[in-house]
Amino acid sequence: MTMGMKVLLVGATGVVGRAVSRMLTGRHEVVEASLTRAAHRVDITDSASVEALLESIGPLDAIVSAAGEAHFGAFAATTNEAFEAGVRRKLLGQVQLVLAGYGRLRDGGSVTLTSGVIGRVLVPGASNGATVNAGLEAFVRAAAAELPRGLRLNVVSPSVLAESWRAYGRHFPGLRPVDAEPVADAYRRSVEGSETGQVYAVH
Amino acid sequence: MTMGMKVLLVGATGVVGRAVSRMLTGRHEVVEASLTRAAHRVDITDSASVEALLESIGPLDAIVSAAGEAHFGAFAATTNEAFEAGVRRKLLGQVQLVLAGYGRLRDGGSVTLTSGVIGRVLVPGASNGATVNAGLEAFVRAAAAELPRGLRLNVVSPSVLAESWRAYGRHFPGLRPVDAEPVADAYRRSVEGSETGQVYAVH
Repeated sequence: MTMGMKVLLVGATGVVGRAVSRMLTGRHEVVEASLTRAAHRVDITDSASVEALLESIGPLDAIVSAAGEAHFGAFAATTNEAFEAGVRRKLLGQVQLVLAGYGRLRDGGSVTLTSGVIGRVLVPGASNGATVNAGLEAFVRAAAAELPRGLRLNVVSPSVLAESWRAYGRHFPGLRPVDAEPVADAYRRSVEGSETGQVYAVH
Repeated sequence: MTMGMKVLLVGATGVVGRAVSRMLTGRHEVVEASLTRAAHRVDITDSASVEALLESIGPLDAIVSAAGEAHFGAFAATTNEAFEAGVRRKLLGQVQLVLAGYGRLRDGGSVTLTSGVIGRVLVPGASNGATVNAGLEAFVRAAAAELPRGLRLNVVSPSVLAESWRAYGRHFPGLRPVDAEPVADAYRRSVEGSETGQVYAVH
Protein backbone atom coordinates (compact mmCIF):
# COMPACT_ATOMS: atom_id res chain seq x y z
CA MET A 1 0.00 0.00 0.00
CA THR A 2 1.51 3.32 -0.96
CA MET A 3 -1.49 5.67 -0.77
CA GLY A 4 -4.32 6.26 1.66
CA MET A 5 -2.44 5.32 4.78
CA LYS A 6 -3.23 6.60 8.24
CA VAL A 7 -0.15 8.54 9.38
CA LEU A 8 0.49 10.06 12.80
CA LEU A 9 2.69 13.15 12.42
CA VAL A 10 4.26 14.24 15.72
CA GLY A 11 5.85 17.68 15.74
CA ALA A 12 3.42 18.73 13.03
CA THR A 13 3.65 22.45 13.72
CA GLY A 14 7.44 22.87 13.48
CA VAL A 15 9.23 23.95 10.33
CA VAL A 16 10.02 20.37 9.29
CA GLY A 17 6.65 19.05 10.46
CA ARG A 18 4.71 21.60 8.41
CA ALA A 19 6.67 20.64 5.31
CA VAL A 20 5.96 16.94 5.94
CA SER A 21 2.27 17.74 6.46
CA ARG A 22 2.08 19.58 3.13
CA MET A 23 3.77 16.64 1.41
CA LEU A 24 1.61 13.87 2.90
CA THR A 25 -1.81 15.56 3.11
CA GLY A 26 -3.97 14.49 0.19
CA ARG A 27 -1.92 11.33 -0.28
CA HIS A 28 -2.73 9.98 3.19
CA GLU A 29 -4.89 10.59 6.22
CA VAL A 30 -2.55 12.69 8.37
CA VAL A 31 -3.24 12.91 12.10
CA GLU A 32 -1.35 15.90 13.44
CA ALA A 33 0.07 16.12 16.95
CA SER A 34 2.43 18.51 18.68
CA LEU A 35 3.34 19.86 22.07
CA THR A 36 1.12 22.94 21.97
CA ARG A 37 -0.65 23.75 18.72
CA ALA A 38 -1.83 20.75 16.67
CA ALA A 39 -5.25 19.04 16.87
CA HIS A 40 -3.74 16.39 19.15
CA ARG A 41 -1.42 17.39 22.00
CA VAL A 42 1.49 15.22 23.05
CA ASP A 43 4.65 15.60 25.12
CA ILE A 44 6.99 12.89 23.83
CA THR A 45 9.08 13.08 27.01
CA ASP A 46 6.03 11.93 29.01
CA SER A 47 5.15 8.26 28.60
CA ALA A 48 1.56 8.78 29.82
CA SER A 49 1.04 11.52 27.24
CA VAL A 50 2.40 9.30 24.43
CA GLU A 51 0.22 6.36 25.52
CA ALA A 52 -2.89 8.57 25.71
CA LEU A 53 -2.28 9.91 22.21
CA LEU A 54 -1.74 6.48 20.67
CA GLU A 55 -4.75 5.07 22.49
CA SER A 56 -7.01 7.86 21.22
CA ILE A 57 -5.96 7.42 17.59
CA GLY A 58 -6.17 3.66 17.17
CA PRO A 59 -4.39 1.51 14.56
CA LEU A 60 -1.93 3.28 12.28
CA ASP A 61 0.11 2.60 9.16
CA ALA A 62 2.89 5.01 9.96
CA ILE A 63 4.31 7.28 12.63
CA VAL A 64 6.45 10.25 11.61
CA SER A 65 8.31 12.24 14.24
CA ALA A 66 9.69 15.69 13.57
CA ALA A 67 9.71 16.47 17.28
CA GLY A 68 12.28 17.13 19.97
CA GLU A 69 14.97 19.80 20.11
CA ALA A 70 18.54 19.15 21.17
CA HIS A 71 20.39 21.72 23.26
CA PHE A 72 22.54 24.11 21.28
CA GLY A 73 25.13 26.22 23.04
CA ALA A 74 28.81 26.70 23.86
CA PHE A 75 30.25 23.75 25.77
CA ALA A 76 31.62 26.03 28.50
CA ALA A 77 28.07 27.26 29.19
CA THR A 78 26.41 23.82 28.98
CA THR A 79 25.09 22.57 32.29
CA ASN A 80 24.47 18.96 33.05
CA GLU A 81 20.75 19.77 33.26
CA ALA A 82 20.68 21.39 29.82
CA PHE A 83 22.56 18.47 28.28
CA GLU A 84 20.25 15.92 29.84
CA ALA A 85 17.16 17.86 28.79
CA GLY A 86 18.28 17.81 25.16
CA VAL A 87 18.86 14.05 25.31
CA ARG A 88 15.49 13.59 26.96
CA ARG A 89 13.58 15.64 24.38
CA LYS A 90 15.11 14.60 21.09
CA LEU A 91 16.70 11.18 21.74
CA LEU A 92 14.69 9.49 24.50
CA GLY A 93 11.45 11.16 23.40
CA GLN A 94 11.70 9.80 19.87
CA VAL A 95 12.85 6.37 21.08
CA GLN A 96 9.81 6.31 23.33
CA LEU A 97 7.55 6.95 20.33
CA VAL A 98 9.04 3.87 18.69
CA LEU A 99 8.79 1.67 21.80
CA ALA A 100 5.21 2.72 22.54
CA GLY A 101 4.09 2.89 18.94
CA TYR A 102 5.43 -0.01 16.91
CA GLY A 103 3.07 -2.56 18.44
CA ARG A 104 0.11 -0.48 17.23
CA LEU A 105 1.24 -0.36 13.60
CA ARG A 106 -0.34 -2.56 10.97
CA ASP A 107 1.98 -5.17 9.38
CA GLY A 108 4.60 -3.53 7.19
CA GLY A 109 4.03 -0.14 8.80
CA SER A 110 6.80 2.32 9.56
CA VAL A 111 8.23 4.78 12.04
CA THR A 112 10.32 7.66 10.70
CA LEU A 113 12.38 9.76 13.12
CA THR A 114 14.39 12.97 12.74
CA SER A 115 18.08 13.45 13.47
CA GLY A 116 19.97 16.33 11.84
CA VAL A 117 23.14 17.56 10.25
CA ILE A 118 24.70 18.69 13.54
CA GLY A 119 27.54 16.36 14.36
CA ARG A 120 28.28 15.59 10.73
CA VAL A 121 29.71 19.09 10.60
CA LEU A 122 31.40 20.11 13.83
CA VAL A 123 30.68 23.64 14.92
CA PRO A 124 30.96 25.22 18.37
CA GLY A 125 27.83 24.51 20.39
CA ALA A 126 27.18 21.18 18.68
CA SER A 127 28.10 18.71 21.42
CA ASN A 128 24.55 17.91 22.51
CA GLY A 129 23.14 17.81 18.99
CA ALA A 130 26.01 15.62 17.81
CA THR A 131 25.38 13.17 20.66
CA VAL A 132 21.65 13.02 20.07
CA ASN A 133 21.77 12.76 16.29
CA ALA A 134 24.45 10.06 16.23
CA GLY A 135 22.60 8.17 18.94
CA LEU A 136 19.33 8.32 17.00
CA GLU A 137 20.93 7.08 13.79
CA ALA A 138 22.64 4.18 15.59
CA PHE A 139 19.37 3.35 17.33
CA VAL A 140 17.50 3.19 14.03
CA ARG A 141 20.08 0.91 12.42
CA ALA A 142 20.08 -1.48 15.38
CA ALA A 143 16.39 -1.50 16.29
CA ALA A 144 15.18 -1.80 12.68
CA ALA A 145 16.84 -5.20 12.45
CA GLU A 146 14.75 -6.51 15.35
CA LEU A 147 11.27 -5.26 14.40
CA PRO A 148 8.64 -7.97 13.74
CA ARG A 149 5.90 -8.22 11.07
CA GLY A 150 7.80 -6.37 8.36
CA LEU A 151 7.68 -3.16 10.39
CA ARG A 152 10.18 -0.56 9.27
CA LEU A 153 12.20 2.14 11.03
CA ASN A 154 14.13 4.96 9.34
CA VAL A 155 15.48 8.40 10.20
CA VAL A 156 15.73 11.61 8.18
CA SER A 157 18.76 13.85 8.79
CA PRO A 158 17.88 17.32 7.49
CA SER A 159 20.23 20.25 7.25
CA VAL A 160 18.90 23.63 8.33
CA LEU A 161 15.83 24.47 6.27
CA ALA A 162 15.84 27.62 4.18
CA GLU A 163 13.08 29.20 6.25
CA SER A 164 15.12 28.67 9.44
CA TRP A 165 18.37 29.85 7.90
CA ARG A 166 17.93 33.53 8.82
CA ALA A 167 17.57 32.57 12.50
CA TYR A 168 20.15 29.77 12.76
CA GLY A 169 22.39 29.83 9.72
CA ARG A 170 25.09 31.94 11.36
CA HIS A 171 25.81 29.03 13.73
CA PHE A 172 26.64 26.69 10.86
CA PRO A 173 29.57 27.88 8.78
CA GLY A 174 30.20 25.43 5.98
CA LEU A 175 26.59 24.37 5.64
CA ARG A 176 24.05 25.52 3.13
CA PRO A 177 20.30 25.71 3.72
CA VAL A 178 18.10 23.08 2.12
CA ASP A 179 14.63 23.51 0.67
CA ALA A 180 11.70 22.07 2.58
CA GLU A 181 10.48 19.93 -0.31
CA PRO A 182 13.41 17.49 -0.65
CA VAL A 183 13.42 17.13 3.13
CA ALA A 184 9.70 16.36 3.20
CA ASP A 185 10.14 13.96 0.29
CA ALA A 186 12.62 11.92 2.34
CA TYR A 187 9.90 11.33 4.93
CA ARG A 188 7.47 10.40 2.14
CA ARG A 189 9.93 7.84 0.76
CA SER A 190 10.34 6.31 4.20
CA VAL A 191 6.55 6.10 4.71
CA GLU A 192 5.63 4.84 1.25
CA GLY A 193 8.70 2.76 0.41
CA SER A 194 10.00 -0.57 1.60
CA GLU A 195 13.36 0.37 3.11
CA THR A 196 14.27 -0.03 6.76
CA GLY A 197 17.24 0.88 8.95
CA GLN A 198 18.04 3.81 6.64
CA VAL A 199 19.39 7.28 7.32
CA TYR A 200 18.07 9.71 4.70
CA ALA A 201 20.54 12.62 4.73
CA VAL A 202 19.32 15.83 3.06
CA HIS A 203 22.27 18.16 3.56
CA MET B 1 54.46 15.43 31.47
CA THR B 2 53.98 11.75 30.71
CA MET B 3 54.73 10.11 34.09
CA GLY B 4 53.74 10.77 37.67
CA MET B 5 50.32 12.20 36.93
CA LYS B 6 47.37 12.13 39.31
CA VAL B 7 44.67 10.08 37.58
CA LEU B 8 41.10 9.50 38.76
CA LEU B 9 39.90 6.09 37.55
CA VAL B 10 36.11 5.71 37.75
CA GLY B 11 34.78 2.19 37.34
CA ALA B 12 38.04 0.86 38.74
CA THR B 13 36.64 -2.49 39.86
CA GLY B 14 35.12 -3.64 36.55
CA VAL B 15 36.90 -5.85 34.06
CA VAL B 16 38.12 -2.93 31.97
CA GLY B 17 38.81 -0.76 35.01
CA ARG B 18 41.02 -3.38 36.65
CA ALA B 19 43.07 -3.70 33.46
CA VAL B 20 43.48 0.08 33.29
CA SER B 21 44.50 0.14 36.95
CA ARG B 22 47.19 -2.50 36.36
CA MET B 23 48.49 -0.53 33.38
CA LEU B 24 48.62 2.88 35.07
CA THR B 25 49.63 1.98 38.64
CA GLY B 26 53.36 2.54 39.13
CA ARG B 27 53.45 5.01 36.25
CA HIS B 28 51.01 7.41 37.91
CA GLU B 29 49.16 8.11 41.14
CA VAL B 30 45.86 6.31 40.48
CA VAL B 31 42.84 7.29 42.58
CA GLU B 32 40.27 4.50 42.27
CA ALA B 33 36.52 5.02 42.43
CA SER B 34 33.53 2.83 41.68
CA LEU B 35 29.89 2.37 42.58
CA THR B 36 30.41 -0.15 45.37
CA ARG B 37 33.90 -1.51 45.92
CA ALA B 38 36.76 0.93 45.33
CA ALA B 39 38.42 3.21 47.91
CA HIS B 40 36.23 6.09 46.70
CA ARG B 41 32.54 5.53 46.04
CA VAL B 42 30.70 7.35 43.26
CA ASP B 43 27.44 7.03 41.37
CA ILE B 44 28.02 8.80 38.05
CA THR B 45 24.27 9.13 37.48
CA ASP B 46 24.07 11.33 40.62
CA SER B 47 25.48 14.84 40.21
CA ALA B 48 25.89 15.33 43.97
CA SER B 49 27.90 12.11 44.20
CA VAL B 50 30.17 13.17 41.31
CA GLU B 51 30.70 16.63 42.82
CA ALA B 52 31.52 15.17 46.24
CA LEU B 53 34.08 12.80 44.74
CA LEU B 54 35.80 15.50 42.71
CA GLU B 55 35.79 17.89 45.66
CA SER B 56 37.40 15.30 47.94
CA ILE B 57 40.21 14.49 45.51
CA GLY B 58 41.35 17.95 44.47
CA PRO B 59 43.26 18.91 41.32
CA LEU B 60 43.86 16.16 38.76
CA ASP B 61 45.83 15.56 35.60
CA ALA B 62 43.46 13.00 34.13
CA ILE B 63 40.08 11.37 34.55
CA VAL B 64 39.50 7.90 33.11
CA SER B 65 36.00 6.45 33.05
CA ALA B 66 35.34 2.75 32.55
CA ALA B 67 31.94 3.07 34.17
CA GLY B 68 28.33 2.76 33.15
CA GLU B 69 26.55 -0.20 31.59
CA ALA B 70 24.17 0.07 28.68
CA HIS B 71 21.03 -2.07 28.58
CA PHE B 72 21.40 -5.29 26.61
CA GLY B 73 18.34 -7.26 25.62
CA ALA B 74 15.91 -8.12 22.82
CA PHE B 75 14.12 -5.08 21.45
CA ALA B 76 10.71 -6.70 21.94
CA ALA B 77 11.45 -7.01 25.66
CA THR B 78 12.98 -3.54 26.06
CA THR B 79 10.88 -1.18 28.14
CA ASN B 80 11.14 2.55 27.96
CA GLU B 81 12.44 2.52 31.54
CA ALA B 82 15.23 0.03 30.73
CA PHE B 83 16.26 2.00 27.65
CA GLU B 84 16.36 5.27 29.57
CA ALA B 85 18.30 3.69 32.45
CA GLY B 86 21.02 2.50 30.04
CA VAL B 87 21.31 5.99 28.53
CA ARG B 88 21.42 7.51 31.99
CA ARG B 89 24.16 5.18 33.27
CA LYS B 90 26.56 4.95 30.36
CA LEU B 91 25.91 8.06 28.24
CA LEU B 92 24.67 10.79 30.58
CA GLY B 93 26.78 9.48 33.49
CA GLN B 94 30.01 9.73 31.52
CA VAL B 95 29.05 13.09 30.00
CA GLN B 96 28.42 14.34 33.52
CA LEU B 97 31.94 13.29 34.54
CA VAL B 98 33.28 15.47 31.73
CA LEU B 99 31.06 18.44 32.51
CA ALA B 100 31.79 18.33 36.25
CA GLY B 101 35.43 17.34 35.90
CA TYR B 102 37.14 19.25 33.13
CA GLY B 103 37.28 22.50 35.08
CA ARG B 104 39.30 20.74 37.81
CA LEU B 105 41.97 19.38 35.45
CA ARG B 106 45.38 20.99 35.20
CA ASP B 107 46.24 22.59 31.84
CA GLY B 108 46.71 19.94 29.15
CA GLY B 109 44.92 17.30 31.23
CA SER B 110 42.59 14.72 29.77
CA VAL B 111 39.33 12.86 30.17
CA THR B 112 39.06 9.39 28.63
CA LEU B 113 35.64 7.73 28.33
CA THR B 114 34.53 4.24 27.34
CA SER B 115 32.16 3.33 24.50
CA GLY B 116 32.26 -0.20 23.04
CA VAL B 117 32.02 -2.37 19.99
CA ILE B 118 28.24 -2.78 20.20
CA GLY B 119 26.69 -0.85 17.37
CA ARG B 120 29.71 -1.30 15.10
CA VAL B 121 28.57 -4.89 14.78
CA LEU B 122 24.79 -5.25 14.84
CA VAL B 123 23.51 -8.13 16.90
CA PRO B 124 20.06 -8.68 18.41
CA GLY B 125 19.79 -6.88 21.74
CA ALA B 126 22.18 -4.12 20.72
CA SER B 127 19.82 -1.18 20.24
CA ASN B 128 20.56 0.53 23.55
CA GLY B 129 24.30 -0.13 23.41
CA ALA B 130 24.46 1.08 19.81
CA THR B 131 22.67 4.31 20.75
CA VAL B 132 24.86 4.96 23.78
CA ASN B 133 28.20 4.11 22.13
CA ALA B 134 27.53 6.16 18.99
CA GLY B 135 26.31 9.03 21.13
CA LEU B 136 29.44 8.94 23.30
CA GLU B 137 31.77 8.90 20.31
CA ALA B 138 29.96 11.82 18.67
CA PHE B 139 30.02 13.70 21.98
CA VAL B 140 33.78 13.26 22.31
CA ARG B 141 34.47 14.47 18.78
CA ALA B 142 32.30 17.56 19.24
CA ALA B 143 33.13 18.51 22.83
CA ALA B 144 36.88 17.97 22.43
CA ALA B 145 36.97 20.81 19.92
CA GLU B 146 35.59 23.24 22.49
CA LEU B 147 37.72 22.44 25.54
CA PRO B 148 39.95 25.26 26.84
CA ARG B 149 43.56 25.25 28.18
CA GLY B 150 44.79 22.38 26.01
CA LEU B 151 42.47 19.97 27.78
CA ARG B 152 41.87 16.76 25.88
CA LEU B 153 38.94 14.35 25.55
CA ASN B 154 39.08 10.85 24.00
CA VAL B 155 37.09 7.61 24.11
CA VAL B 156 38.18 3.98 24.03
CA SER B 157 35.91 1.50 22.24
CA PRO B 158 36.82 -1.97 23.50
CA SER B 159 35.46 -5.23 22.17
CA VAL B 160 34.46 -7.86 24.71
CA LEU B 161 37.49 -8.70 26.86
CA ALA B 162 38.74 -12.28 26.95
CA GLU B 163 37.85 -12.68 30.62
CA SER B 164 34.24 -11.62 29.90
CA TRP B 165 33.94 -13.76 26.78
CA ARG B 166 32.67 -16.85 28.55
CA ALA B 167 29.77 -14.85 30.02
CA TYR B 168 28.92 -12.60 27.06
CA GLY B 169 30.60 -13.94 23.94
CA ARG B 170 27.59 -15.94 22.78
CA HIS B 171 25.71 -12.65 22.25
CA PHE B 172 28.29 -11.42 19.75
CA PRO B 173 28.60 -13.67 16.74
CA GLY B 174 31.23 -12.27 14.39
CA LEU B 175 33.30 -10.71 17.14
CA ARG B 176 36.44 -12.07 18.73
CA PRO B 177 37.53 -11.39 22.31
CA VAL B 178 40.38 -8.98 22.88
CA ASP B 179 43.10 -9.17 25.51
CA ALA B 180 42.99 -6.74 28.40
CA GLU B 181 46.44 -5.34 27.76
CA PRO B 182 45.91 -3.66 24.37
CA VAL B 183 42.63 -2.23 25.70
CA ALA B 184 44.37 -0.83 28.78
CA ASP B 185 47.16 0.52 26.60
CA ALA B 186 44.63 2.58 24.62
CA TYR B 187 43.66 4.37 27.84
CA ARG B 188 47.35 4.89 28.65
CA ARG B 189 47.94 6.46 25.22
CA SER B 190 45.02 8.80 25.75
CA VAL B 191 46.26 9.82 29.21
CA GLU B 192 49.95 10.20 28.34
CA GLY B 193 49.71 11.35 24.74
CA SER B 194 48.72 14.60 23.10
CA GLU B 195 45.73 13.55 21.00
CA THR B 196 42.19 14.79 21.49
CA GLY B 197 38.78 14.03 19.97
CA GLN B 198 39.95 10.48 19.19
CA VAL B 199 38.11 7.15 19.24
CA TYR B 200 40.57 4.36 20.10
CA ALA B 201 38.95 1.18 18.77
CA VAL B 202 40.35 -2.09 20.13
CA HIS B 203 38.17 -4.69 18.38
